[in-house]
Amino acid sequence: MSQPAVVPIEGGAVTHRFVSLDTYDVRFPTSREFDGSDAMNADPDYSAAYVVLRTDAVGGGEAGGESTEGHGFAFTIGRGNDVQTAAIEALRPYLVGRLMKEVLDDLGGLYRELVYDSQLRWLGPEKGVMHMAISAVVNALWDLKAKRAGLPLWQLLSAMSPEELVDLVDFRYLSDALTPQEALRLLRRGERGRQERVQALLAGGYPAYATSPGWLGYDDAKLERLCREALAAGFTHIKLKVGADLDDDLRRMRIARQVCGPGVRIAIDANQRWDVGTAVEWVEALAPFDPWWVEEPTSPDDVVGHAAIARRIAPIPVATGEHVQNRVVFKQLLQLNAVSFVQLDAARVAGVNENVAILLLAAKFGVPVCPHAGGVGLCELVQHLSMFDYVAVSGSMHDRAIEYVDHLHEHFTDPVRMHRGHYLAPLAPGFSSTMRAESRARYAFPDGPVWRAGADAAGASPSR
Amino acid sequence: MSQPAVVPIEGGAVTHRFVSLDTYDVRFPTSREFDGSDAMNADPDYSAAYVVLRTDAVGGGEAGGESTEGHGFAFTIGRGNDVQTAAIEALRPYLVGRLMKEVLDDLGGLYRELVYDSQLRWLGPEKGVMHMAISAVVNALWDLKAKRAGLPLWQLLSAMSPEELVDLVDFRYLSDALTPQEALRLLRRGERGRQERVQALLAGGYPAYATSPGWLGYDDAKLERLCREALAAGFTHIKLKVGADLDDDLRRMRIARQVCGPGVRIAIDANQRWDVGTAVEWVEALAPFDPWWVEEPTSPDDVVGHAAIARRIAPIPVATGEHVQNRVVFKQLLQLNAVSFVQLDAARVAGVNENVAILLLAAKFGVPVCPHAGGVGLCELVQHLSMFDYVAVSGSMHDRAIEYVDHLHEHFTDPVRMHRGHYLAPLAPGFSSTMRAESRARYAFPDGPVWRAGADAAGASPSR
Repeated sequence: MSQPAVVPIEGGAVTHRFVSLDTYDVRFPTSREFDGSDAMNADPDYSAAYVVLRTDAVGGGEAGGESTEGHGFAFTIGRGNDVQTAAIEALRPYLVGRLMKEVLDDLGGLYRELVYDSQLRWLGPEKGVMHMAISAVVNALWDLKAKRAGLPLWQLLSAMSPEELVDLVDFRYLSDALTPQEALRLLRRGERGRQERVQALLAGGYPAYATSPGWLGYDDAKLERLCREALAAGFTHIKLKVGADLDDDLRRMRIARQVCGPGVRIAIDANQRWDVGTAVEWVEALAPFDPWWVEEPTSPDDVVGHAAIARRIAPIPVATGEHVQNRVVFKQLLQLNAVSFVQLDAARVAGVNENVAILLLAAKFGVPVCPHAGGVGLCELVQHLSMFDYVAVSGSMHDRAIEYVDHLHEHFTDPVRMHRGHYLAPLAPGFSSTMRAESRARYAFPDGPVWRAGADAAGASPSR
Repeated sequence: MSQPAVVPIEGGAVTHRFVSLDTYDVRFPTSREFDGSDAMNADPDYSAAYVVLRTDAVGGGEAGGESTEGHGFAFTIGRGNDVQTAAIEALRPYLVGRLMKEVLDDLGGLYRELVYDSQLRWLGPEKGVMHMAISAVVNALWDLKAKRAGLPLWQLLSAMSPEELVDLVDFRYLSDALTPQEALRLLRRGERGRQERVQALLAGGYPAYATSPGWLGYDDAKLERLCREALAAGFTHIKLKVGADLDDDLRRMRIARQVCGPGVRIAIDANQRWDVGTAVEWVEALAPFDPWWVEEPTSPDDVVGHAAIARRIAPIPVATGEHVQNRVVFKQLLQLNAVSFVQLDAARVAGVNENVAILLLAAKFGVPVCPHAGGVGLCELVQHLSMFDYVAVSGSMHDRAIEYVDHLHEHFTDPVRMHRGHYLAPLAPGFSSTMRAESRARYAFPDGPVWRAGADAAGASPSR
């Protein structure tokens, strides 16, 4: 990389610098209970390749001492979390030693620097391990920026001008579908009513749907019980994992529909299990149970395949996104009418900046965004993106819901708060991305107490 | 991972096991001379995340002592080679301790195990750092298998039956374009004449084209001199890097065309620099100089964009592939008629196995394969794939040429041999992937003598 120009500026906070980029390999032994099991991911150990950006600023402002650190992470499901952590460390030279204010004042610029590193780019470009590493660092910077502004991220973003928001986006490879000028027009159109929508979120939150009932590894009785619990908790939309065995899926879908009744939306999720032909046959078999959408019917890389499936199973809609690698693939899914729901992920594409691009693309094509969540801390992150989308981009909550999984929230200092099937708007400054220090220590891999103690219990799924 | 069943078998080679997977971070300071500079990669330090698979077999057979080791690598361009190396190490548990014969007898099975690791898969799936790591290990296994068979890889593959070849391929996500049955038919059709084609390769080699003249960082005089040298060496096809500045490109293309005359094919390569609209305008401006193809006009992820460009600049053909992440994206490029040349890379997709799939897809769609090469050792690898393609898959050398860059070959024990613009068929057993031990030591990063000595000289491009 070319060394950033470092200009010493006198006076106050402008002289503060990033002093370290520290990573943590944190893994939760979720595979011991088969939580999170689906047709392609049989035994996940939900994990975070976690990063803390530290500065030499001392605490202060509304946010207290924490306002001097930015926290972020990439989500993985166990093995390879060390590789992901190594990738984050490769970005250290971009931050350490630089002026905090200069970086935070131009996060569009910093994001582009990371994506276009002339050597690291070869490892993607803009995909996989290296791109998720950029996500972790970019999100940590947004966390720090929001903490220092004393605002939750969704409100910080929602207060930015259309021009400032457009400047966050890298429009390279997008201009055949969305130009900066079109994005500006979209955002200006959305300026009216921003304050009312902020108030609506503060009063009523944002709709959620529940995935917890439907993991493949659960037996029928547990499925039925969890469906009832989801209804009792106020959810009107749930999701079932499918794709391993059609007879099982028919039986489980029947149970879910019986328990929920016709008024509840039941989405199905194949987690990339099928080829195009199989997807069509399988969904047609499940069609009598009125699935709300079919999610990840095939490879996340197969734009053309998604389009073929969408045509053939219409009017049942197709959804995808948690494994879509970047804005260029989302662009194509929208260009080919291959998806009716965009399921962006907070930590797979290059963080907030690339997700602003994806929200703008979805708005341009009039497709609702229903983010992927669950995992470790993904619910905490994506709520900010959906709320920003509602306030400043799409302006709508119609046909939109954020995935919700009741899982691992206790490890975060500002966990999501749910009420009657809705995410309540986060109020604490930052991106809700800060994991409790005790959790980072307790679940550190491989030397934290949980992994030392659990080495035997883990049995069939050693996380190395 | 689930532990592989280890069944001790008595007698001879069947009891040998893999005893280690060792990695080496090897980097060549090529940026000091601007070799390899293009519109997106200004200062590459060509590097190998190198792997050696060692067994407890002792030397023997025709290949001598080396027949007990498999060598492979992922190619990177400098920073991040350590991340790539860490990713290869994450695959260690799949090999160490396992029976060599069992693994080598079912490389289709081993490849699928690696791709479908239920946790590592999350880091892609099938793309970027983790997928290139699989490439390195799979190719090292093929190297070992070919060494032990006493054959160069292209001949080993060319001697396999259609059924054995089909078994190497993962057809998941391909069946809407190519089924196992169709692949089998293609390969059976190609069985006739295999021996004659082997003889043709041994006698005359395989056509090459030269990229060395056209790097962006070279001045006009060097461009002209290198064009003349390429012609004198027998090349009838060269390639120029374009995309940074249109006036420069017009001038350089004019020089190249003047030096080469109308009979020589001159391809142009934009290395992903453009959006769709810019690509069309730029290529139209260069059209009077009769480019043979335009390579990587835009993002390698943009199948729809490549298709739009191809339609609009026809009859000038589009080529791409060196950054195409896997067979699923190649499938779509072919389905949408987005490419007229498939430029597979030996070490970006999951090694020999996935490249067999890509060769079959290209044959199905009747599109010639002209592999990407250059870098470190990529010429050494891809020659085997093109020669296998000629013998057993496409059966043709028409409109086909392997990229050639006269660079870093001296570091390999079995370097490519060129004659009058052709690759001569490699004769040594193995995949030609073995780097000299002295080179591995001398260019080891960061502690090898070249990097210790060159820390000052590297100047603007520190490789950390």
